Amino acid sequence: MTSPFVPGPAVRIAGTPGGPLAGLTFAAKDLFDVAGHPTGGGNPDWARAHPVPTRHAWAVQRLLDAGATLIGKTVTDEVSLGILGENPFDGTPLNPTAPDRVPGGSSSGSASAVAQGLCDTALGTDTGGSVRVPASFCGLYGIRPTHGRLDLGGMMRQAPSSDTAGWFARDADTFARVCQALLGEPAAELPTRLVVATDAFGLADDETAAALRPMVCRLSALVRDVREELLAPPGLSVWARAQRTLQSYEAWVTFKDWIDRENPRMAWSVARNLALAATISEPEREWAALTRAEARGRLAWLLQPGTILCLPTTPFPAPRKGLPLPVLSPLRARITCLAAHGGLTGVPQVSIPGAHVGGLPVGLSILGARGTDATLVAVAKALGCGR
Amino acid sequence: MTSPFVPGPAVRIAGTPGGPLAGLTFAAKDLFDVAGHPTGGGNPDWARAHPVPTRHAWAVQRLLDAGATLIGKTVTDEVSLGILGENPFDGTPLNPTAPDRVPGGSSSGSASAVAQGLCDTALGTDTGGSVRVPASFCGLYGIRPTHGRLDLGGMMRQAPSSDTAGWFARDADTFARVCQALLGEPAAELPTRLVVATDAFGLADDETAAALRPMVCRLSALVRDVREELLAPPGLSVWARAQRTLQSYEAWVTFKDWIDRENPRMAWSVARNLALAATISEPEREWAALTRAEARGRLAWLLQPGTILCLPTTPFPAPRKGLPLPVLSPLRARITCLAAHGGLTGVPQVSIPGAHVGGLPVGLSILGARGTDATLVAVAKALGCGR
Repeated sequence: MTSPFVPGPAVRIAGTPGGPLAGLTFAAKDLFDVAGHPTGGGNPDWARAHPVPTRHAWAVQRLLDAGATLIGKTVTDEVSLGILGENPFDGTPLNPTAPDRVPGGSSSGSASAVAQGLCDTALGTDTGGSVRVPASFCGLYGIRPTHGRLDLGGMMRQAPSSDTAGWFARDADTFARVCQALLGEPAAELPTRLVVATDAFGLADDETAAALRPMVCRLSALVRDVREELLAPPGLSVWARAQRTLQSYEAWVTFKDWIDRENPRMAWSVARNLALAATISEPEREWAALTRAEARGRLAWLLQPGTILCLPTTPFPAPRKGLPLPVLSPLRARITCLAAHGGLTGVPQVSIPGAHVGGLPVGLSILGARGTDATLVAVAKALGCGR
Repeated sequence: MTSPFVPGPAVRIAGTPGGPLAGLTFAAKDLFDVAGHPTGGGNPDWARAHPVPTRHAWAVQRLLDAGATLIGKTVTDEVSLGILGENPFDGTPLNPTAPDRVPGGSSSGSASAVAQGLCDTALGTDTGGSVRVPASFCGLYGIRPTHGRLDLGGMMRQAPSSDTAGWFARDADTFARVCQALLGEPAAELPTRLVVATDAFGLADDETAAALRPMVCRLSALVRDVREELLAPPGLSVWARAQRTLQSYEAWVTFKDWIDRENPRMAWSVARNLALAATISEPEREWAALTRAEARGRLAWLLQPGTILCLPTTPFPAPRKGLPLPVLSPLRARITCLAAHGGLTGVPQVSIPGAHVGGLPVGLSILGARGTDATLVAVAKALGCGR
């Protein structure tokens, strides 16, 4: 089972003729409502407990209105809880850049479908890294927009204070076109200052950090001023802990009623995380909320007008499929260390194809201040066009 | 899905002709090995990770040698963790005495098959109540033998310091015949003293305690001397907490390697219990072990030679199927309060059809000192014959 699409009747809805995305095809992660089709959420007991939607999610409607044609709904980690893309109910969508590796998750099927060329773009969600990580592992462009910028109507929620809707593309031009349609503004001016996050590069594998250096040089050439800084002075691991605390507890609150009512089947790792989340104490959550406030302050200071920051999207390329949990857990923890700032602070982030390590793709990420999504798209376009 | 038998190819193995159980049929919970058939353990990811057995479990072989014919393998709660008999992968076996009620678990299919008359007896396992509870809910005779008395070879383990193999029958004569074959001794002499456990009757629903009174009177008539005592002076809830601590932690140790390797799919409630078990601290386990030692002392004192003790097997008849977890949890907790002494102390217990409450069966249980299993069988026979 390696199809990126969920089982069931085919989904195909033509886009509005003559729109700016006419001729493009897209898929939607099975967390987005498509009228007349159940939203599966990656879990066999979700759809039964929820009505079949009667209208499209905002992002689906927006792409249809812009002229893109919906060609399928894609596999996701269960209820978006997962970062690797291995779903024991629906299977692991193929990572075409490395068939023995995971595609990354939770927007696994969307990344897989785009990477395989089955569609031009695909909607995903990113709460703790679920667009950025599969973009890195599958060699794609991917965006996590500014938190709160897009209408998330009709999108299954996980942790509302971190949830975003994002998307993937194979090339910079398509990526920019889709971004313009969904963000509602064209690519903006290029930034003038670049911060290189030394702690983030330090946490990556040596080969990954080294492989990304040429792309960092190309990025540096776009700006006037480059400096090195710590992204997270208290430690990326401390930020990751705060984000895990806030996100897990919010996810528990989100899913508790469904769980109580349905006692759903889940992969052990997903159930375990929710079960432990339910035991998180209020003092721990208070600490995490303060850490979030500090992290937001840090990023506001780092990302002053005209400034972007770069870091490896993931500390290494895609791990092998089917690794046992004790091997996966530390890998997952390190991935989270490079992704946690997104959910914690809400700043936008674009991951671009950054390098290959041993033949496997890995992404370089660019952050900007809240609301500067279009600047990041401009950077992706500037770097992508020269390739 | 209400079949008591697991899906897959039919299982039928004729017993040795001319044995004492010739003419009887039996089924085995899918925790017992049957050569050439996978042992499913009630979980979709168990069999894949374990070889198909090449020999029968001891108890299966024993029944075959005694002449009984094996006619199927039965549904169980996942990896024997459950007390209600609702398995979301294999379905909930029918409770023929009350089709809208659970059959009880984890030996759900074995109880269901016997209660439906599909076989004469069936093997189950009882770690924390998994034979006694379904016997009560389905109106059957059921035994949890003295811990350590029977060979558990070829039986999937859960918590070795509490695990036992038990069985069910519809009538006292069949029950006594099967007991003789498996225990290796005939029914013994009747006891002379009865202890009525006042705390256990106090924890039962009023209607259940009242409905069981006539059977307690009949039981009293068999002995010379009747007195009332507390079963658990520190509280049945305290004993239940100790047993839950020991059993859950042992179950976690038992299943940890499989879980780490397979990341299996599980019902939320099962995964949650294991996830929380993994967090049980050593001081808590030490306290539970001391409580076990005290409980064993208490039962040795209560169950002096010639003495039996009676209590309601369950505090109420079978609950409805499909109740949400917040409704089920307190029910499950009360069931555990009346069952925990078994796993905690290892004494044998027989549940007999005790009464009906609102048309639903509920069992009366008889405990004896370790090794007095055959005395309990004699009591069941004496009460059963007069009906």
